[in-house]
Amino acid sequence: MAGGSGTRFWPLSRRRTPKQVLAILGPNSLLQDTVQRIMGLAPSERTFVVTNLRQKRLIAQQLPDLSDSNYILEPSPRNTAPCIGLAAFAIRRIDPQAVMIVLPSDHLVRDESAFIQAIRTAVEVARQTDGLVTFGIPPTRIETGYGYIQFEPTDGDLPKSVHRVKAFAEKPNRETAERFVASGEFYWNSGIFIWRVERILKEMEEHLPEQYHQLDMISRAWGQPGYARTLVNRWGRIRPISIDYGVMEVASSPIYMVEGDFGWSDVGSWDELYRLHKGNANHNVTLGETALIDAKDNFIYSPGKITAMVGLDNVMVINTPTATLICPLDRAQDVKQVVEKLKREGKEHYL
Amino acid sequence: MAGGSGTRFWPLSRRRTPKQVLAILGPNSLLQDTVQRIMGLAPSERTFVVTNLRQKRLIAQQLPDLSDSNYILEPSPRNTAPCIGLAAFAIRRIDPQAVMIVLPSDHLVRDESAFIQAIRTAVEVARQTDGLVTFGIPPTRIETGYGYIQFEPTDGDLPKSVHRVKAFAEKPNRETAERFVASGEFYWNSGIFIWRVERILKEMEEHLPEQYHQLDMISRAWGQPGYARTLVNRWGRIRPISIDYGVMEVASSPIYMVEGDFGWSDVGSWDELYRLHKGNANHNVTLGETALIDAKDNFIYSPGKITAMVGLDNVMVINTPTATLICPLDRAQDVKQVVEKLKREGKEHYL
Repeated sequence: MAGGSGTRFWPLSRRRTPKQVLAILGPNSLLQDTVQRIMGLAPSERTFVVTNLRQKRLIAQQLPDLSDSNYILEPSPRNTAPCIGLAAFAIRRIDPQAVMIVLPSDHLVRDESAFIQAIRTAVEVARQTDGLVTFGIPPTRIETGYGYIQFEPTDGDLPKSVHRVKAFAEKPNRETAERFVASGEFYWNSGIFIWRVERILKEMEEHLPEQYHQLDMISRAWGQPGYARTLVNRWGRIRPISIDYGVMEVASSPIYMVEGDFGWSDVGSWDELYRLHKGNANHNVTLGETALIDAKDNFIYSPGKITAMVGLDNVMVINTPTATLICPLDRAQDVKQVVEKLKREGKEHYL
Repeated sequence: MAGGSGTRFWPLSRRRTPKQVLAILGPNSLLQDTVQRIMGLAPSERTFVVTNLRQKRLIAQQLPDLSDSNYILEPSPRNTAPCIGLAAFAIRRIDPQAVMIVLPSDHLVRDESAFIQAIRTAVEVARQTDGLVTFGIPPTRIETGYGYIQFEPTDGDLPKSVHRVKAFAEKPNRETAERFVASGEFYWNSGIFIWRVERILKEMEEHLPEQYHQLDMISRAWGQPGYARTLVNRWGRIRPISIDYGVMEVASSPIYMVEGDFGWSDVGSWDELYRLHKGNANHNVTLGETALIDAKDNFIYSPGKITAMVGLDNVMVINTPTATLICPLDRAQDVKQVVEKLKREGKEHYL
């Protein structure tokens, strides 16, 4: 899934350069890392990128091993359920027995071999149980920016790292998050899913019948002369809904959670990126030259020019050729307010 | 006097673009305003700009009414006494009876007619008494960034706005500044001087004999074939010293202070520039587009790009194509620490 246009990394992320195509943690973009990471399990002919026309060209430049047949294009954003449904229909055409791994393209995974091992386990569980499988990330801090998964032991002979999902919880407030983490029964919801395509399509048919119908119509037009028109017309009628809300929270199939202890982060905001760069040290993280006086624990991203800072701590400065953002790190979540303000004021060219 | 390379407006002011050539308060640079302001009293053939070779070209572009004969070039910075001495020798060659008005080129004057009136008074006092005349600015706040002049009533029939100078005080600490302002006997030292060229040269001969000797040697070579070499050699041997310390504080002539109630400011730092722009309103001062969330009383200078700020007050952001400065307004004085740091680290190209 590479169609998102995340606003929380403004001004670095823009409509045409969303978070997943940015190389914010290394030489490669998060998207490139995502595709690279899964390559051993899913070679390029079985890798599909769902995105939109606006982003496709840049994405295709970043993924030279993929060709047009690897792309599934959404005419407009409809949240994750229609996105996953469209991909599921596409995959079923190739292999009705296929197991599908749904990966956001803008996450960080630090331990690749643990990740691959967990994916293998999840694929096995999906095949064996015909259930819906997701990853739960053992929380490493009180975090209000993620959804949580409550789990309980499985019965049966599944691996030790596999649990039965009891409930999904949306992003909690601070107090609730503290309770979740303290209980040991709640893991972070990674947004990664594994299931047989038949299974997820059955669930969508049952719980999202309108969306399913439109997707089915699109699927039937595949390869026909009128496909583009059908796609645009049918897709346009689809009501946006997330896979969590539309399927996972109401699913009829059993849901399993595989422990995902592989150094995962959704790199959801500038302050999280700062923490990832900083590690455990107590200092400034800088990209670009700096001259700092009485300034600590700051995050300065300003390639190609010098940034001087005097007497400020815990502040981030993101300086791109056309825009600058200055904000305390603990208000990084409010960057989306800036984007909303720009939208409201009609300053679309900055988005 | 237009040779300064002020560091307190870094990164906008650089070695080649010092404060006086910047248009920081309106369409014209402070230098252009200074020359324009005095034009009615001193037409261009009697206006002399003391600067250095590095800045001359840019200054000449800003002052199209002046020609090469209006420039007096210093080979290197030697503080104000040698600068004024060199100019005094040059003016004496043209008119030994001349009264000389010494003006820094980087000050702000808001009430031009009051300024001209005060200059007329000062010129009259200099002619009548053959003393040294300076301007004292009635203080409008406790200010530790300026020197002060202590004054007492004059005897004789001088205008009411003219006082006798009792003492010069260097930049005081906070407590002393409070006492100065409360006393009513201390005005700000504007660094503007008026005197007969003969008078200041006599004072220099007496109190700065070594400097005077070198300047005299330079003056004698004027118009001779070896002038440039003499200038560089002799000037190089001059020990830098300010006119305040070298002459005013030890002068043998009587010293008068004319009240300068003409909206003066030396625009000495970013926070003063912020105050001047802001007036009495309580808001952000911005140049360039902005998107501000929970941000007040900030000073944002970032032409040509958008600046977003979240959750910060009383902070300045100065964003030029090659450098950015972020600093609380009340630490604007510490910008010179940044410049010193850059110098120390050999990053001369940023200066």
